[in-house]
Amino acid sequence: MSNRPYPLDAWYAAAWDVEVKRALFPRTICGTAVVLWRTRDGRAVAMEDACWHRLLPLSKGRIEGDEVVCGYHGLVFDPGGRCVHMPSQETINPSACVKTYPVVERHRFVWIWPGDPAKADPALVPDMHWNDDPAWAGDGRLIHGRCDWRLVLDNLMDLTHETFVHGSSIGNRAVAEAPFDVTHGERTVTVTRWMEGIEAPPFWAGQLGRPGPVDRWQIVRFEAPATICIDVGVAVAGTGAKAGNRSQGVNGMVLNTVTPETDRTCHYFWAFARNYRLGEQRLTTEICDGVAGIFHEDEIILEAQQRAIDANPGRPFYNLNIDAGAMWARRLIDRMVEAERRPPAVRAAE
Amino acid sequence: MSNRPYPLDAWYAAAWDVEVKRALFPRTICGTAVVLWRTRDGRAVAMEDACWHRLLPLSKGRIEGDEVVCGYHGLVFDPGGRCVHMPSQETINPSACVKTYPVVERHRFVWIWPGDPAKADPALVPDMHWNDDPAWAGDGRLIHGRCDWRLVLDNLMDLTHETFVHGSSIGNRAVAEAPFDVTHGERTVTVTRWMEGIEAPPFWAGQLGRPGPVDRWQIVRFEAPATICIDVGVAVAGTGAKAGNRSQGVNGMVLNTVTPETDRTCHYFWAFARNYRLGEQRLTTEICDGVAGIFHEDEIILEAQQRAIDANPGRPFYNLNIDAGAMWARRLIDRMVEAERRPPAVRAAE
Amino acid sequence: MSNRPYPLDAWYAAAWDVEVKRALFPRTICGTAVVLWRTRDGRAVAMEDACWHRLLPLSKGRIEGDEVVCGYHGLVFDPGGRCVHMPSQETINPSACVKTYPVVERHRFVWIWPGDPAKADPALVPDMHWNDDPAWAGDGRLIHGRCDWRLVLDNLMDLTHETFVHGSSIGNRAVAEAPFDVTHGERTVTVTRWMEGIEAPPFWAGQLGRPGPVDRWQIVRFEAPATICIDVGVAVAGTGAKAGNRSQGVNGMVLNTVTPETDRTCHYFWAFARNYRLGEQRLTTEICDGVAGIFHEDEIILEAQQRAIDANPGRPFYNLNIDAGAMWARRLIDRMVEAERRPPAVRAAE
Repeated sequence: MSNRPYPLDAWYAAAWDVEVKRALFPRTICGTAVVLWRTRDGRAVAMEDACWHRLLPLSKGRIEGDEVVCGYHGLVFDPGGRCVHMPSQETINPSACVKTYPVVERHRFVWIWPGDPAKADPALVPDMHWNDDPAWAGDGRLIHGRCDWRLVLDNLMDLTHETFVHGSSIGNRAVAEAPFDVTHGERTVTVTRWMEGIEAPPFWAGQLGRPGPVDRWQIVRFEAPATICIDVGVAVAGTGAKAGNRSQGVNGMVLNTVTPETDRTCHYFWAFARNYRLGEQRLTTEICDGVAGIFHEDEIILEAQQRAIDANPGRPFYNLNIDAGAMWARRLIDRMVEAERRPPAVRAAE
Repeated sequence: MSNRPYPLDAWYAAAWDVEVKRALFPRTICGTAVVLWRTRDGRAVAMEDACWHRLLPLSKGRIEGDEVVCGYHGLVFDPGGRCVHMPSQETINPSACVKTYPVVERHRFVWIWPGDPAKADPALVPDMHWNDDPAWAGDGRLIHGRCDWRLVLDNLMDLTHETFVHGSSIGNRAVAEAPFDVTHGERTVTVTRWMEGIEAPPFWAGQLGRPGPVDRWQIVRFEAPATICIDVGVAVAGTGAKAGNRSQGVNGMVLNTVTPETDRTCHYFWAFARNYRLGEQRLTTEICDGVAGIFHEDEIILEAQQRAIDANPGRPFYNLNIDAGAMWARRLIDRMVEAERRPPAVRAAE
Repeated sequence: MSNRPYPLDAWYAAAWDVEVKRALFPRTICGTAVVLWRTRDGRAVAMEDACWHRLLPLSKGRIEGDEVVCGYHGLVFDPGGRCVHMPSQETINPSACVKTYPVVERHRFVWIWPGDPAKADPALVPDMHWNDDPAWAGDGRLIHGRCDWRLVLDNLMDLTHETFVHGSSIGNRAVAEAPFDVTHGERTVTVTRWMEGIEAPPFWAGQLGRPGPVDRWQIVRFEAPATICIDVGVAVAGTGAKAGNRSQGVNGMVLNTVTPETDRTCHYFWAFARNYRLGEQRLTTEICDGVAGIFHEDEIILEAQQRAIDANPGRPFYNLNIDAGAMWARRLIDRMVEAERRPPAVRAAE
């Protein structure tokens, strides 16, 4: 446990809102099997997916009203995880319960807090409001990443890779060579890159729908430990986008949040929201399919990288200038992990 | 070896009688690869499935008369495991032999004794006589269980699960709620459950062929370490079945014996024998197919349970009243395992 | 590392010449992922298949001129492994490089030296000249062996197994019973077996095309650590083949070199060259297909043997007279491995 590469005291996206229904839905999060379901009034519940009695996954059972019935011997658990019925006996062991997790539903995701429930402050849910803000339109998907969750974050914190991984869609030489700026706070890291007067890459040329050079921006904002929202777009070159006037451009938000499944696999939730042509569902589908194609190029790279890491235990990563954003993101994650490792007594003395 | 979850000094079913022929048949039993075959006079032989010379499985070779010829370099072994021919040399190393196992063929199974051959008393073969008693008819199958063999025994010692796992065939609420009685001896545990004046579940209603309430019985008898024979049936309610008069009912024996393959897999041999409509092969086939369907429901549960156990090392099982039979069965097994762990000198001093 | 079952200071066949092209070709050799490619002038290059920066396999990138471009962030490496370009920065870390391996192309194979480059003497490439000698014709294949590489060598050093594994093609009783002679030097072991006045096995009867008994020879020559060339053939019995006159016979060379992939898998390169009917490509194809079929019989045995070894950790191999050649080959390998284990200081003192 002390070697896990993720903090537990954090909100992680467990599922897209539509994934959680009046059905028992299993998903492993931070190394633990969890079952997600909704009560009759639509409230999402997250419980450990193992019966108190003999560990059978509760997801093999069924919902009855607002309770879960184990599929092996019929023990019944309420949404708080307390056992309220045992077969063939009147008295219920008062310790009979399964662990439940704090849940918040926000920005189209069901978030759970795998760590200390007392610290599960809903105000700490990361800001992904573009995902259900009426001023924005879009949708997203879920990728099962066969890599350490941090490799996805590294990937998103440095967009230089667009040039080499996504050359046919969003990458071009300008991304790899443009200067960028990195700032950070207690829980956030921001990488800002402006490419002024460049040729638009294919995707953005299509979105803008106007010829000629553009000013392009990528403002990557990491919110510890698992969320990265990227403000992206292009505007007609020289029309003042960098100074704040984006009226001659198009703007999207690439929303990403990554949930560790195991030490070597993760759930990578992403969405793309735009603030133009809001009513065009066809465009939403086109963009979603396009981004899915681009992110699949990343998947191939990330899985190959994970296999190489596994084959070379102890090999260090070397860092380039371009890694400044990812290094800060990892540092904030490491601090959270480190803080959870210390014994409570020491923490109290801080 | 000291952590294996099964005793070695016991008869285990290695195969159905028809599986062992004039051919080299490999099967792993209690962690060891074994090859089974028959000599010209039909006697079943069990040998370690690894040539003395270079470990090639002997099952890759061939039978010649009453001997096995290794498929790599042609070493020949007699049914006692002694090497009787080596290529290109006259003198045979007197230590050249492969291990053989005591074998008894009884009740349609080929039994082997993986432990100390000196203790292999044929009188200890468990009683499954219904499997070839002319007063009974039936047949059975073999399931490859992807779980610790003891999970199958737990499953069979408590039939409460029928209500939740087999609701469409043999389970109903009565099973989960009826009282039961548990007794045990040195090598046996018996769980008796009578459900009087109940509605027959679909399977038994069909077998009885008469409408109205029934008295139903389940008398589960465990014979350590691996065999469970269950006396099951229904009779027209109130006709004295519990007192011993089963003339107004139908009676079957569910015969089960479970052989560890590895610590996490097993060979689960089962049969269903009935003492009515003996000549109807069609009924035998129908029941066999039906029970196979029911036991497949158990397989799904048992494999999910094993995966949950693997994912939660060190997590205890909690016990309910319904687990009394399984707890006693495990206790008898644990005693056998424990006895084999002690050094021989200490055993002699007992 | 100290337990690996192969020396590193040796030439190993990494690929058939035709496998290495103007493309990035990954192959794992002696436990390390290697990428093979050719520069514009056709020279073969072997580099560790992991970018210095973040370990992405370089084989996921692309060749540009005589350089490799990483497929993630665009770092560029020259054929010597030195990084010559980094994205978004002018200064290149002078330590930024990937490991390269000495390469020699000879006898239709690309050979690499995984160990100390200072010792990579091209004179040590094993003699397989028949593979591109105009006086010989033939071709070969590559088998991915799912076994410890030494099991393949054991197999080839003792051809007794032909009788039992290849009874339908090249094996018959004579091979298992004929006497043989074993000699050895510092780096070689030779096993010579003459079977005089015997019936030719099917393959050789076909090649000779003349009826009647033959004198058959098998002269197996091991060159440490990984190469075995076998001089094989038959001549009309009594025409003096053993004394040196092979004019009434047919002669082939079975060329084998085995490269460890991991401790339990290997790349087994083989070819069959003949010195008769040189111009008949059809015959080359027929023989190649025939030998491939024969060697597939070995693959099945070798994989079964490896599984048996894995299932029986610590079980010894026993040796027969027929194992004398293999024992000497293993001894020479063990000496090489042992020599690499000793600390350099001790070696210097020898």
